[in-house]
Amino acid sequence: MKFQIDLLIERIRKTGNPTCVGLDTRVEYLPKAYLDSICPDGVDSMEKAAQAILQYNIDLLDAVADLIPSVKVQVAYYEMYGLEGMKAFYQTVKEAKARNLTVIVDVKRNDIGATAEAYSAAYLGETSLPKGAARACESDFATVNPYLGEDGIKPFLKDIASHGTGIFALVKTSNPSSGQLQDLMIGEKTVYQVVGDLVSEWGKDSIGEYGYSAVGAVVGATYPEQGTELRKRLPHTFFLVPGYGAQGAKGEDLKGCFDEKGEGAVVNASRSILCAWKKHPEMDFKQAARAEVIAMRDDIASALGKN
Amino acid sequence: MKFQIDLLIERIRKTGNPTCVGLDTRVEYLPKAYLDSICPDGVDSMEKAAQAILQYNIDLLDAVADLIPSVKVQVAYYEMYGLEGMKAFYQTVKEAKARNLTVIVDVKRNDIGATAEAYSAAYLGETSLPKGAARACESDFATVNPYLGEDGIKPFLKDIASHGTGIFALVKTSNPSSGQLQDLMIGEKTVYQVVGDLVSEWGKDSIGEYGYSAVGAVVGATYPEQGTELRKRLPHTFFLVPGYGAQGAKGEDLKGCFDEKGEGAVVNASRSILCAWKKHPEMDFKQAARAEVIAMRDDIASALGKN
Repeated sequence: MKFQIDLLIERIRKTGNPTCVGLDTRVEYLPKAYLDSICPDGVDSMEKAAQAILQYNIDLLDAVADLIPSVKVQVAYYEMYGLEGMKAFYQTVKEAKARNLTVIVDVKRNDIGATAEAYSAAYLGETSLPKGAARACESDFATVNPYLGEDGIKPFLKDIASHGTGIFALVKTSNPSSGQLQDLMIGEKTVYQVVGDLVSEWGKDSIGEYGYSAVGAVVGATYPEQGTELRKRLPHTFFLVPGYGAQGAKGEDLKGCFDEKGEGAVVNASRSILCAWKKHPEMDFKQAARAEVIAMRDDIASALGKN
Repeated sequence: MKFQIDLLIERIRKTGNPTCVGLDTRVEYLPKAYLDSICPDGVDSMEKAAQAILQYNIDLLDAVADLIPSVKVQVAYYEMYGLEGMKAFYQTVKEAKARNLTVIVDVKRNDIGATAEAYSAAYLGETSLPKGAARACESDFATVNPYLGEDGIKPFLKDIASHGTGIFALVKTSNPSSGQLQDLMIGEKTVYQVVGDLVSEWGKDSIGEYGYSAVGAVVGATYPEQGTELRKRLPHTFFLVPGYGAQGAKGEDLKGCFDEKGEGAVVNASRSILCAWKKHPEMDFKQAARAEVIAMRDDIASALGKN
């Protein structure tokens, strides 16, 4: 079976760009003139906010889809707009899929076995109905939280085996307080090393044709040393690397997350691309986003010695 | 300010019933005759499944609302039905609120600060719009995962302070593999003790009039010794206790989660109530659910020496 992780790797090779654009779109991130053109009477309801966000996502996808292999859609920014936001979420996933992009839904789901099964059906597999079955969301990957241990992960592994989709489990997150729990020592290992080893173990039956498993890890770009160390420790685990751009990391900081061929990771940037128009006032938001995507691609290529 | 945790405690006192009914409703849990009456042509779409689930929730709420202080709505079982499921989710929350029940949304959300802020707006606070603000979901409490440490929790604390809502953070979960990470030793403490102490610290500024904080903990009923130990360790932390019924725990197993007054915890049961009709074939599903709610109430009261 072809895993989505293989397809992601192929798309990264084709674009020469190991990144995803994070569609963490909030109504505050939209240029005022754009917002006014979509909602001339002002955004005074969840419905109007969600409508503006969806249109922005579509315009942004049209502007950068040819340059990138994947997008990451952070569901929190849609849940905050309630049901109308969720409509925009599912439609955004569809629009990205329609442009041949790998879609990672950043949902960080986690629960006990029976409930993890429901989450897995929602994002990696399909939902059984008394008559037939249907997909709830067209995503290729979902992020998951490993705090509940293996039986909260097994249902995802089952859907990975039958649908070829994948997960990225939190190992070392990009936020300032990630060390509060993740860096503590359990015997000779840190918590994140223990979790990293579990993630590697969970992924051993779904290694694709390029040597990377459909069970990946989230490793924050803001902790370069830990990224380098985890890359060596987990040779078959593909990394989703957040923290580039607005969170402070640069190409140099994350090169340790890549293997010796310059593969094995996909780097996310959200705000720096969504709000690129603030940095480039001479451009419209589409041109600005495109310029930032290219700058990020070149920055990473340069750090990897590829240009 | 009145905290929702105070209101929950008052509702528990009034009903003499420290439980919540878990609305983890899947279409498979509905009696066939009931499903046929709602969807005579069969359930062949997400829309029909979600419609049947919502109606079941409403009927169940009507059957048991006078006996219980609260419900817990597990969002995974709605996400698996996609956008139609999410419609049923938001409506279920509304229906429960309309019956004066405390609503805990079991979402186990977690992310970095900026994103946790969006989740907090979604479930505990409100969403700012360019003109005005609105609530995305009418919930009183949300469950959260602590793996990212303090800055993933702070946004929730801010909304707790301004809206009086609350959270339950995962400490010791009810599933079989919860010990895989949670029971490991960090120096002299287990991971779950470290997390429990953090939760207690996070909650110290939101202790309500009955001595319990709006920042609570999830402590699984399936680990009685750990529950007893955590109760002593965290005297101001209210516990949400899953694992009763279908997961195997009984009243005796969870009495250690309560304080010496028989307070300080709310026990959830989902499948044993949703599917009570399977156990009581002589009753309709509403009577059966009511019988199970009463049996659970009495079982816990007996374990607490209250009847």
